[in-house]
Amino acid sequence: MTGLPDRVELLIDLYELTMAASYLENGMTDPATFSLFIRKYPPDRGYFVAAGLEDFLEYVANFHFSESDLAYLGSTRTFSQEFLDYLKEMRFTGSIRAMGEGEIFFQDEPILEVTAPVIESQILETFVINTISLQTMIATKASRCVHVAAGRGLVDFSLRRTHGIDAGLKVARSSFIAGFAATSNVLAGKLYGIPTAGTMAHSYISSFGDEIEAFRAFARSFPKKTILLIDTYDTVAGAKKAAIVGQEMVKEGDKLLGVRLDSGDMTLLSRQVRKILDESGLQGTEIFASSSFDEYKIAKTIKDGGRIDAFGVGTKMGVSADSPYFDIVYKLVQYADRPIIKRSTGKVNLAGKKQVFRRSKKDGSFFEDVIGLQDETVEDGVPLLETVMENGKCMRPHPPLQVIRDRFKMNFSSLHERHKLLQDSTPYPVRISSRLQELQESL
Amino acid sequence: MTGLPDRVELLIDLYELTMAASYLENGMTDPATFSLFIRKYPPDRGYFVAAGLEDFLEYVANFHFSESDLAYLGSTRTFSQEFLDYLKEMRFTGSIRAMGEGEIFFQDEPILEVTAPVIESQILETFVINTISLQTMIATKASRCVHVAAGRGLVDFSLRRTHGIDAGLKVARSSFIAGFAATSNVLAGKLYGIPTAGTMAHSYISSFGDEIEAFRAFARSFPKKTILLIDTYDTVAGAKKAAIVGQEMVKEGDKLLGVRLDSGDMTLLSRQVRKILDESGLQGTEIFASSSFDEYKIAKTIKDGGRIDAFGVGTKMGVSADSPYFDIVYKLVQYADRPIIKRSTGKVNLAGKKQVFRRSKKDGSFFEDVIGLQDETVEDGVPLLETVMENGKCMRPHPPLQVIRDRFKMNFSSLHERHKLLQDSTPYPVRISSRLQELQESL
Repeated sequence: MTGLPDRVELLIDLYELTMAASYLENGMTDPATFSLFIRKYPPDRGYFVAAGLEDFLEYVANFHFSESDLAYLGSTRTFSQEFLDYLKEMRFTGSIRAMGEGEIFFQDEPILEVTAPVIESQILETFVINTISLQTMIATKASRCVHVAAGRGLVDFSLRRTHGIDAGLKVARSSFIAGFAATSNVLAGKLYGIPTAGTMAHSYISSFGDEIEAFRAFARSFPKKTILLIDTYDTVAGAKKAAIVGQEMVKEGDKLLGVRLDSGDMTLLSRQVRKILDESGLQGTEIFASSSFDEYKIAKTIKDGGRIDAFGVGTKMGVSADSPYFDIVYKLVQYADRPIIKRSTGKVNLAGKKQVFRRSKKDGSFFEDVIGLQDETVEDGVPLLETVMENGKCMRPHPPLQVIRDRFKMNFSSLHERHKLLQDSTPYPVRISSRLQELQESL
Repeated sequence: MTGLPDRVELLIDLYELTMAASYLENGMTDPATFSLFIRKYPPDRGYFVAAGLEDFLEYVANFHFSESDLAYLGSTRTFSQEFLDYLKEMRFTGSIRAMGEGEIFFQDEPILEVTAPVIESQILETFVINTISLQTMIATKASRCVHVAAGRGLVDFSLRRTHGIDAGLKVARSSFIAGFAATSNVLAGKLYGIPTAGTMAHSYISSFGDEIEAFRAFARSFPKKTILLIDTYDTVAGAKKAAIVGQEMVKEGDKLLGVRLDSGDMTLLSRQVRKILDESGLQGTEIFASSSFDEYKIAKTIKDGGRIDAFGVGTKMGVSADSPYFDIVYKLVQYADRPIIKRSTGKVNLAGKKQVFRRSKKDGSFFEDVIGLQDETVEDGVPLLETVMENGKCMRPHPPLQVIRDRFKMNFSSLHERHKLLQDSTPYPVRISSRLQELQESL
């Protein structure tokens, strides 16, 4: 319903099909390896957080064109019957090597490599870029928020402004991987098991008309889960009413979990509200804030002395507002036994099947990555690309979301602070192995 | 598959449900009217193009919670059985007044208003903002590209970088409404009947190794539909090879439709390539270009004398890169018979059920909009909000996409050039009727 198709194999650029038809006609069926990587850090970014692999593998493992897809393609009068017959039987039979979700990586490093007969590996281009790009972009943005929040809770409030339905779900999942505590997105709660959060909007208060009566009504409905939105009319006056209701709740044996600020000067208001709550004996009532937060505003509010216990982070995280796309590409790096290099203006790819090796100090902290050839070894270098699919079959079940989240947390703690600054972070050292370099020069 | 759910009723913020539960418990079942509007122009925008209504109406007309939705909500131990029973039976029974898709509108103007028992009208908030926001944002961005392209063809190439699957489809649809000629997105072609376009990637050329052999192979496969990508190695050398193949095609009674540039200086290269083609007698072979175009780069390339016949417009349009979200909100403006105003810091809503009246000159050009009360009339003012749903039923079938596209084209031609400049456009005059103003002051 609502325009969401049940199968998405045709969610590809038309040229994937015209190229495939021409490959078939020209008998080009050799294996081709494509590499997915990000060419360049967007502004203020110095690392990336891998996400989206699960969706991609599910897509690949189930890939086939439906009868109605084939009927549509036939109706365009672009393709031969022979090609349509080929598409009907086509499944993915190749292999995929990839970094796990939650891995940290850097520009130029392959996130995954696909090797399969050229038609099969080429046709995945559009979907793999789309899926990995969105989820990696959001996990990266969200990790920056988590980092500067320094232990304060973060909740994904972005659903209303994400770019559509799919993005709404993927933003909840990606931000959870990066350490968000919960999401307002109920469907993400159902599908992914992510904790959900949220209580009331301004309209709730407005429909009652009397603010304190609205507070009391909500507290009656949810005596164990109430967070009161206090800025509908005037935040300080709202806080005083919330404190009265909080004290009433205490008398009933309940507890006002928190109040929420949604407009105005967050630093100033949070300090005023904290004082009002404390003076009413409500030291345990937390202050939530949701007001155009992103990593920059969270950092500034904390630095300025704001007394905020948890942040609702919405639009700017959910669309990665300061950098809403990455220069991520899926490039042919080998055809048959021939490594492929491409050098059109300003766009260079590393030819050959590759591996990323990570070198860590004894304390576990990362100090250098080496991009090398798939079949080489690097001293003390742990290879990051693992074979996740072979002969078109997944090698193992995908890890649970919580495992991915834990893996990210561990990885992130192994990346030095100087590489995680919001701005002007020190570039993390990534070098090319001498064997890989020699290959490039030989081409 | 691929994580796309078949029903999306739970794609809401949790607070929609907690408020609903509390409304039910407090017996608040009066009709509430919510108004959807954009508070403020994003940078460089001076108008908006309405899009997304069809998806929203389909969502509302089919709205109901599934057994598995209810089972999930029950498992959260947040809601009473009485409330879950209510949700099970809940359908939308209210009315919706809206601007048609393809309508031009301005900041503060209601795009649509929903009136229904408060639980039903409130619960639509997340979805309506998400859907209308994305599609309106893209239609607006795309219309700017169409405007500056001044008749040259535009093709949506954004699918790989849109924020997920749903966005990929909606971007194709919204840009088509705004006047794009085609999309690379095959599924959008199937679902919406939009023409599709595309021929080859660099990988196609690379896999052959020999550029002219790759050109010849493609021309054999698609003798009537070939556009050759000529920048894999060197654009000028590529153009000369394309010209040879183009001449070979002429001898076979075919025609090289075009060549595509994808990197480098678009103005300079397009002029050089045009000369090469012309000198080879290929005056009818067009030049397509796709290289980080958006409305600004299209305008500059044309102004600088680039000889480009059609543009592939990708990422920057597909994510509305310079403005990837709008300040769009869905606000309670009336509860029962009581108009609602809200004045938290910097955020003011217009209370009451409203209408937008458009006034045009004799030649059809728009000169003023008046935001008034629903039940008033404005001299020579054509009301833009129409009743599209009553008692939960759509009033009529949704117009075909081509009709919407034509409507946009006509509307856009009625908006004076001074309001359509890429930057520093003159604000279009929108005033509040005296009756609406009096209502605000009385509250």
